[in-house]
Amino acid sequence: MRVDGREPLQLRPIHIETNYLMHPEGSVLISVGNTKVICTASIEDRVPHFMRGEGKGWITAEYSMLPRATETRNIRESSKGKVSGRTMEIQRLIGRALRAIVDLSAIGEKTVWIDCDVIQADGGTRTASITGAFVALTLALNSLAEKRSFSKFPITDYLAATSVGILSGGKVVLDLNYAEDSKAEVDMNVVMTGNGEFVELQGTGEESTFSYDQLQGLLHAAQEGLMELFEQQKAALGEDIIKKIESRRKK
Amino acid sequence: MRVDGREPLQLRPIHIETNYLMHPEGSVLISVGNTKVICTASIEDRVPHFMRGEGKGWITAEYSMLPRATETRNIRESSKGKVSGRTMEIQRLIGRALRAIVDLSAIGEKTVWIDCDVIQADGGTRTASITGAFVALTLALNSLAEKRSFSKFPITDYLAATSVGILSGGKVVLDLNYAEDSKAEVDMNVVMTGNGEFVELQGTGEESTFSYDQLQGLLHAAQEGLMELFEQQKAALGEDIIKKIESRRKK
Amino acid sequence: MRVDGREPLQLRPIHIETNYLMHPEGSVLISVGNTKVICTASIEDRVPHFMRGEGKGWITAEYSMLPRATETRNIRESSKGKVSGRTMEIQRLIGRALRAIVDLSAIGEKTVWIDCDVIQADGGTRTASITGAFVALTLALNSLAEKRSFSKFPITDYLAATSVGILSGGKVVLDLNYAEDSKAEVDMNVVMTGNGEFVELQGTGEESTFSYDQLQGLLHAAQEGLMELFEQQKAALGEDIIKKIESRRKK
Amino acid sequence: MRVDGREPLQLRPIHIETNYLMHPEGSVLISVGNTKVICTASIEDRVPHFMRGEGKGWITAEYSMLPRATETRNIRESSKGKVSGRTMEIQRLIGRALRAIVDLSAIGEKTVWIDCDVIQADGGTRTASITGAFVALTLALNSLAEKRSFSKFPITDYLAATSVGILSGGKVVLDLNYAEDSKAEVDMNVVMTGNGEFVELQGTGEESTFSYDQLQGLLHAAQEGLMELFEQQKAALGEDIIKKIESRRKK
Amino acid sequence: MRVDGREPLQLRPIHIETNYLMHPEGSVLISVGNTKVICTASIEDRVPHFMRGEGKGWITAEYSMLPRATETRNIRESSKGKVSGRTMEIQRLIGRALRAIVDLSAIGEKTVWIDCDVIQADGGTRTASITGAFVALTLALNSLAEKRSFSKFPITDYLAATSVGILSGGKVVLDLNYAEDSKAEVDMNVVMTGNGEFVELQGTGEESTFSYDQLQGLLHAAQEGLMELFEQQKAALGEDIIKKIESRRKK
Amino acid sequence: MRVDGREPLQLRPIHIETNYLMHPEGSVLISVGNTKVICTASIEDRVPHFMRGEGKGWITAEYSMLPRATETRNIRESSKGKVSGRTMEIQRLIGRALRAIVDLSAIGEKTVWIDCDVIQADGGTRTASITGAFVALTLALNSLAEKRSFSKFPITDYLAATSVGILSGGKVVLDLNYAEDSKAEVDMNVVMTGNGEFVELQGTGEESTFSYDQLQGLLHAAQEGLMELFEQQKAALGEDIIKKIESRRKK
Repeated sequence: MRVDGREPLQLRPIHIETNYLMHPEGSVLISVGNTKVICTASIEDRVPHFMRGEGKGWITAEYSMLPRATETRNIRESSKGKVSGRTMEIQRLIGRALRAIVDLSAIGEKTVWIDCDVIQADGGTRTASITGAFVALTLALNSLAEKRSFSKFPITDYLAATSVGILSGGKVVLDLNYAEDSKAEVDMNVVMTGNGEFVELQGTGEESTFSYDQLQGLLHAAQEGLMELFEQQKAALGEDIIKKIESRRKK
Repeated sequence: MRVDGREPLQLRPIHIETNYLMHPEGSVLISVGNTKVICTASIEDRVPHFMRGEGKGWITAEYSMLPRATETRNIRESSKGKVSGRTMEIQRLIGRALRAIVDLSAIGEKTVWIDCDVIQADGGTRTASITGAFVALTLALNSLAEKRSFSKFPITDYLAATSVGILSGGKVVLDLNYAEDSKAEVDMNVVMTGNGEFVELQGTGEESTFSYDQLQGLLHAAQEGLMELFEQQKAALGEDIIKKIESRRKK
Repeated sequence: MRVDGREPLQLRPIHIETNYLMHPEGSVLISVGNTKVICTASIEDRVPHFMRGEGKGWITAEYSMLPRATETRNIRESSKGKVSGRTMEIQRLIGRALRAIVDLSAIGEKTVWIDCDVIQADGGTRTASITGAFVALTLALNSLAEKRSFSKFPITDYLAATSVGILSGGKVVLDLNYAEDSKAEVDMNVVMTGNGEFVELQGTGEESTFSYDQLQGLLHAAQEGLMELFEQQKAALGEDIIKKIESRRKK
Repeated sequence: MRVDGREPLQLRPIHIETNYLMHPEGSVLISVGNTKVICTASIEDRVPHFMRGEGKGWITAEYSMLPRATETRNIRESSKGKVSGRTMEIQRLIGRALRAIVDLSAIGEKTVWIDCDVIQADGGTRTASITGAFVALTLALNSLAEKRSFSKFPITDYLAATSVGILSGGKVVLDLNYAEDSKAEVDMNVVMTGNGEFVELQGTGEESTFSYDQLQGLLHAAQEGLMELFEQQKAALGEDIIKKIESRRKK
Repeated sequence: MRVDGREPLQLRPIHIETNYLMHPEGSVLISVGNTKVICTASIEDRVPHFMRGEGKGWITAEYSMLPRATETRNIRESSKGKVSGRTMEIQRLIGRALRAIVDLSAIGEKTVWIDCDVIQADGGTRTASITGAFVALTLALNSLAEKRSFSKFPITDYLAATSVGILSGGKVVLDLNYAEDSKAEVDMNVVMTGNGEFVELQGTGEESTFSYDQLQGLLHAAQEGLMELFEQQKAALGEDIIKKIESRRKK
Repeated sequence: MRVDGREPLQLRPIHIETNYLMHPEGSVLISVGNTKVICTASIEDRVPHFMRGEGKGWITAEYSMLPRATETRNIRESSKGKVSGRTMEIQRLIGRALRAIVDLSAIGEKTVWIDCDVIQADGGTRTASITGAFVALTLALNSLAEKRSFSKFPITDYLAATSVGILSGGKVVLDLNYAEDSKAEVDMNVVMTGNGEFVELQGTGEESTFSYDQLQGLLHAAQEGLMELFEQQKAALGEDIIKKIESRRKK
């Protein structure tokens, strides 16, 4: 039994509240257990310098935590005057992952800015950000699609992320909370499409290592959780948008 | 009639949700119309360098907006690597205002960090921050008080803030939303204690000016609104805490 | 009696030396008692990005202190690599105040840079800066006007600033020096036009508060001082420029 | 056949020159094909603040490229005044990986600073850095060990890294050069110990995805290359050090 | 004849106003023609980290220009967030030069901060800064000496600086103003002690070169000017301080 | 006898390895004793903003040290987020010196970026950088010349630099290593052209001074060393390039 009473391969309760804010083209408040992230998608009518003239869009992400999202208060990165290595790593991951399921040539020379702001943290903030950002992005692009801006719906598949890990003693668990994460021997984040293909795989055994067999166990656990996350995303997006995505999915 | 149908001296609907987050010692989500701010109070067991050894506490505030709290996305101050003049002005105001109603010698050598993070902006974000931060601060100090840390309750009066302004045509209005604020000829923020004394008064007539008589009209309007805000704060804090504050108020 | 022998509503000696430096279009060295500020106005033939194409001018201000303007040496903001909140607040105030008495559409797409550099500080540096900057700005715009650049003289009224405060014991005083300022219970800066209209009003009662009646006393004291400051500005500017300003003043 | 004539699972020529510099406790120049990295290990007699008093050591890494290590000149990060997200990600990876094969409690309260400076880049700079840094680190700790500073030799296993990828058309290849890397559909970095256990696994399919079966092919290719890299490291370190490492390896 | 009517080896008019500011331990306003610099010396009761416990003092210098000291306005270094290479070079030069004529062990563990703020620039700002800073430094150390803090007077000789150059056509000139400096083929700054020994010699022929014979001519010209500068410094310091310096000078 | 057995006016062994890196247009690894610097020259097809439209080229230099080029590790300037005063002074010197022997109008609107990265430091890094950078620059411009880009060969003379100093006891020595440099009373860097004309002369007597006669001794020593350095540069460049330079030299 886990510290919060869950089974090894059981996700924490998921809640996705869509259109959470009035200004962004797409927004959600996603809760994964006690982890809560506001994800917004903002559309800008131009692309970065290095992409001008190619007729394609771009997706970029930023990630931040409120200072008191955590047990002890963190100094704001704006006060420090620089963004930490951890933050940069996470925002590069979020952007890269989302670009894998968007047909960038279908959206024209537009940039979608994804902002993931963690208001409460209890482990798994980067995977909750990806799972929530997918929904915010889809809502934003759908609202553009409804104004007939696109010839094809630009989202080509579902995308979600979760964490898996090996606790001391060797037990493989799904969706680690902060207490588990800080003691795990191995920690792996898996980003997957609705078709079950990998987009990102990041496994780390700080001060520890893992074998080929353990890797297989981790991948299996992740897949279990991701299938449930796709169902939650579909429920949040609704029938109409599901149909548009299905029209673009490879079978 | 105003753009959103209010009377000239009518506040927007107020909602204060206490204990909004799990980690901070005190936290609220305050809504003033569409303006929404998460206010947290975090207690640290030391004071800044310049105050060590005086046996007194300190209160400091930080203010920020989510990038998409506004109609168009703002660049994060952490990405720019520096905090804007507007942000600094607001966080200095919040800290200074709160220190006026706290008996710093009653809390010992502790710092209370106030964080006001605007998640949705529609005018009046600095005054909503002060009104909400007062509640978060009181909750945090009350939780310390319940552990018998203090000989006297450190909050000595209520504190709230609102804006008043003069629209083109000369009409005095209370609690301006963004559409009104951006067109107002004169804009004034008033911070007041429960006893009706001024803590801060900041009136500005950019590209305009205001007379002594108009000033009196603005002060009257502000007082109307502030009395209602004190009632909302009391409702959020509850009877038990009200009694403790009343025990410290000058009559 | 005050610490330096002044009456409660008496200003310190004022001296305004015009054309203090050889390069700027307008410059003064203003002394208010021991507070000394070099104010310059520099004209640039373009406006900031956000104002291009509107056919209007812009006025922006910067403020700084020499490291040893004060009793103990301050670290340069250039060495720290960032500008303090206090500095930002002051330079925003100076720019906003000056824009209230300039007809920006009369100067075309030009920026006036105001630089206020405090070489010796003894309280009231921000109000001395505004009072001096008004003269430097007027001299700079007059030199442009003499080259027939403008159809109308762009200065529409006088502008000066002073401080008022309440000392412990409740006495209202005008033009506080540093010793008074650091012990005052209430501190208020008032920026006013020659017509007696308010441009900015910033009253603060850090660790203290002030009543409606005290506010009236402060406003009265400020007005006394400001009338004398306008006379000093007129003496520094001379008859010729006074006539041009009078031609634009509302009666 | 690959662009440089290699077989799919063939590494580029490896050269490891030990004691390349006179000052560092350990240093190598590692060449992997045309990719050349100077790796140094510097020992400091204290640990970071957060680790004081635990009796354990720490290992931290920094990574940089000479401006003209690449085809077109890059702006120095010191001139930009900040370190890029890519650099931070790489230096966090190098430090984390090395800590997995060091018995930190065996080295006492010392920090080993690893510096990886790429002087010529042709793909695979982060994996060459890890492979070279392992040798520099081992040399530095061995020189300390020879002064009898340690009760146990602190290196507990070999550590090397390589890249594998899937080229368009689906061919799995080992040790991608820059030309291959910039066109690969999937790119994976694998860090492994001499015992064949994973330390880090980072697979990315930007604008692409990969299946479970493809993942198995990539892992197999990586293992081939890593076995050869361990042989090169042993040849560089020499018999004496190999014996010390073997004494700590788990069988 | 030179552009301002001077003979080739004639200095511009020098004026040194001592005790120019009320707060610093030593201060001057030095004018060298139209170049005007405020030099202050501030004494701090500790030395930098790297010198603690050696029983010796330290002297460090900072240099800055007001934004409108020059013909066109310069952006403040505090606004840019960094200090330019030119500024750093100058402040390192000033500090190094002054340390050559101070007996650091005679002042104990104190730091003297020299601040040179150029309020008007017309060439030769760095040499005017050194010449003025010597006087400010001597005044500050003398005021300490009068409180019997030192066993020996810490100033061991006079120190002044000037520029010499070669104009196009080959004419050697002394004390170049801005118009001459910007067209000179060779520019040399010479810092010398009262005994005629060199402290710093910095000759530069940007886009040009100079021969051994020309060098001798430049050195001769510099010596002429420096002798006159020492007389000006003595006049500013007065008999009493001159005697103290003479007691320390090597004959 | 000197610490490393050299005669007073003997250079350390020099080695210049040309075309050291594959990407830059020109590159060398220069060794002066144990001091080793990688110098590269990169050509960019545009000039800085302030030079556009003049039809001339520009040369700019950057200098850096690997963190462990020195006895104790230095913090990277990219980590500190700013470049030190020493670094700025050196890179300004390198750029200025090289511009003296390049006919900028012969290279058209191109910028040559010189990068000097010290991989091992034992005194004299700035003079080794200049001596090596001259070769890298010449190689780069020659490779352009071979594509017939220039009407005239743009290098107009040789350029090298060395240091001379006065050790305690008064002995004049050539080419100081780190041990000598850190104890020298006077330190002078001399940059000279092949024709024996001075380009830069920087003599410093920190905490010491030097007489006119000592200066003559230093200049003589420098000239001895520079003549040998020109021979080394010629050997590295080869007959073909020597002829091109000779065609531009003033006799």
